[in-house]
Amino acid sequence: MPTVSVQAIGNLAAEAPLQSLTIARRDVTPHDVEIEILYCGVCHSDLHQARGEWGGTVYPCVPGHEIVGRVVRVGAHVKAFREGDLAAVGCLVDSCRECQPCHDHQEQFCEHGATYTYNSPDKHLGGHTYGGYSQRIVVDEGYVLRVPDNLDPAAAAPLLCAGITTYSPLKRWKVGPGQKVGVVGLGGLGHMGIKLAKAMGAYVVVFTTSPSKAEDARRLGADEVALSTDPAQMKQWRMKLDFVLDTVSAPHSADEYLSTLKLDGTMVLVGLPTEPLAVSAFNVIVPRRNFTGSSIGGIQETQEMLDFCSEHNIVSDIELIRADQVNEAWERLLKGDVKYRFVIDMGSLGQ
Amino acid sequence: MPTVSVQAIGNLAAEAPLQSLTIARRDVTPHDVEIEILYCGVCHSDLHQARGEWGGTVYPCVPGHEIVGRVVRVGAHVKAFREGDLAAVGCLVDSCRECQPCHDHQEQFCEHGATYTYNSPDKHLGGHTYGGYSQRIVVDEGYVLRVPDNLDPAAAAPLLCAGITTYSPLKRWKVGPGQKVGVVGLGGLGHMGIKLAKAMGAYVVVFTTSPSKAEDARRLGADEVALSTDPAQMKQWRMKLDFVLDTVSAPHSADEYLSTLKLDGTMVLVGLPTEPLAVSAFNVIVPRRNFTGSSIGGIQETQEMLDFCSEHNIVSDIELIRADQVNEAWERLLKGDVKYRFVIDMGSLGQ
Repeated sequence: MPTVSVQAIGNLAAEAPLQSLTIARRDVTPHDVEIEILYCGVCHSDLHQARGEWGGTVYPCVPGHEIVGRVVRVGAHVKAFREGDLAAVGCLVDSCRECQPCHDHQEQFCEHGATYTYNSPDKHLGGHTYGGYSQRIVVDEGYVLRVPDNLDPAAAAPLLCAGITTYSPLKRWKVGPGQKVGVVGLGGLGHMGIKLAKAMGAYVVVFTTSPSKAEDARRLGADEVALSTDPAQMKQWRMKLDFVLDTVSAPHSADEYLSTLKLDGTMVLVGLPTEPLAVSAFNVIVPRRNFTGSSIGGIQETQEMLDFCSEHNIVSDIELIRADQVNEAWERLLKGDVKYRFVIDMGSLGQ
Repeated sequence: MPTVSVQAIGNLAAEAPLQSLTIARRDVTPHDVEIEILYCGVCHSDLHQARGEWGGTVYPCVPGHEIVGRVVRVGAHVKAFREGDLAAVGCLVDSCRECQPCHDHQEQFCEHGATYTYNSPDKHLGGHTYGGYSQRIVVDEGYVLRVPDNLDPAAAAPLLCAGITTYSPLKRWKVGPGQKVGVVGLGGLGHMGIKLAKAMGAYVVVFTTSPSKAEDARRLGADEVALSTDPAQMKQWRMKLDFVLDTVSAPHSADEYLSTLKLDGTMVLVGLPTEPLAVSAFNVIVPRRNFTGSSIGGIQETQEMLDFCSEHNIVSDIELIRADQVNEAWERLLKGDVKYRFVIDMGSLGQ
């Protein structure tokens, strides 16, 4: 299969820094869309995967799954996209299309293993997939999203992971007017959770360990802020909430936040702490409460989220960086020093 | 308020053995039903509460909330019961009747605190309520159940706690034909879980740590038995089940059983381990799964369960004991040496 060489940023081993690389992209097949990448968000998963913290990383690793760009070429059978369109790619670039979850538009739970945007087996070229820290990407049209015109394309990039990861559970558990919703943690996911839950009509309470974040939480739309390190404030929220979105990836107790839920309330974990969380029996039994999780969203739901964001004028709060600043950005990310998402200006790659 | 003295069995301190006591029961008020207790099941909660293991126990403590007896007197306004009826009382004898859960027939989650059959504040006499290890009990008709004629009254007694505790979550999460259901643990709760899930039409897989229990699990209706200490057997059940009923009160990991669930499967904890359970993020996120709990059931649902048991000829497997054998029975209960519920023949009290 003919390929094109494109420039990318990736690392060659878990301990190695990011560097410039040249990778191969396939030539467009009849159902493919080739996208010139304009912006790519920097997700914490990029760092976990590239540094081998989840196991199973293959090198070179080119991360990036919050991709917005311009369509530069389409395959002969592509109908939904034309050259010049603004398009996006998230965490998935393919799936089996035959299992029940795929039929149900939940490709993220594909029973044969979805093809993730990076570090998944590449069905076309062999080897593994390379992500959005690169100049161009070629993706089957069924896994490409339309980016609404009114959204700033750089600030829209993080919607493709942080946006859908928070939108999907809020939608699934029917968050809306009249409900009190807790958002735990104020980072890339948490700040999207506030904006989306608020746009859905909920009363939003942010739980944070940092008193310094209270003002910012309110600016983002939070109705109240609770300091989770203060037992008196936590006690005040006991059995008050309908739903909790837990975005924290650091080790923490689920009990503390489960206890803020009313009867039959649901807490959804979207952070990925590596240590198991502690859940006390009484906290799910008296009263009855649900503890569950959620993983990104399907392609159709991702488009729905982008359209919802268009309607409500929602994008991520970002800090735009050049390609040569990514190593530094990863170090700052580790310290939580970003409000609230780095986005790489891909035009700066190779300049 | 006039009272009647009745004989009972209870303890005077956490460390004290059970002994004969004389307690006061109120005279019937217009809405009360007075029941001569024929049988009372021995629940593990009786032991936890009487020995002060959950905190908050007041003494003397007279346990027992799996009560079947004969109506001997009814108040002037009582319509649903007549002298001579077979009646039952479970874990609840009153609630506020005004909060949302009470309106929704979920009195077990009464926001003002349901009145439990024992160790709750007694609204009529002051002091605290005394349970079914006694000759008679006086209960508001709204909290008394009808016992279907075709059920053996002694073996029906454990339905009032073990039965409803397992029936309620199976019903709530719509367990039925075409579903594969796991039952974790084969004790008082587990053996009822097997019978009920089977009667609802599910394919039932029992998880036990004891190879010796396999045959009995099959006799009770299990389609398959998995030894949870064997990693190979556990691996075989990965992502195979729609629902898991976890009846284990000993410390254990939730992860092990969560991993047997399919996408969007639910695991309900009805045991009450005192240590928090470990739940790994990936086990609720990829694929999405629910971890939740359930506490007994409301009065209406308890009647529904009794009627379901009548229709399907379901009772508990019991060992009938005399009142003077309860201390010994508790020791055997601690060793798991009972198939599967002790029931006290209350007629033996004071003989």
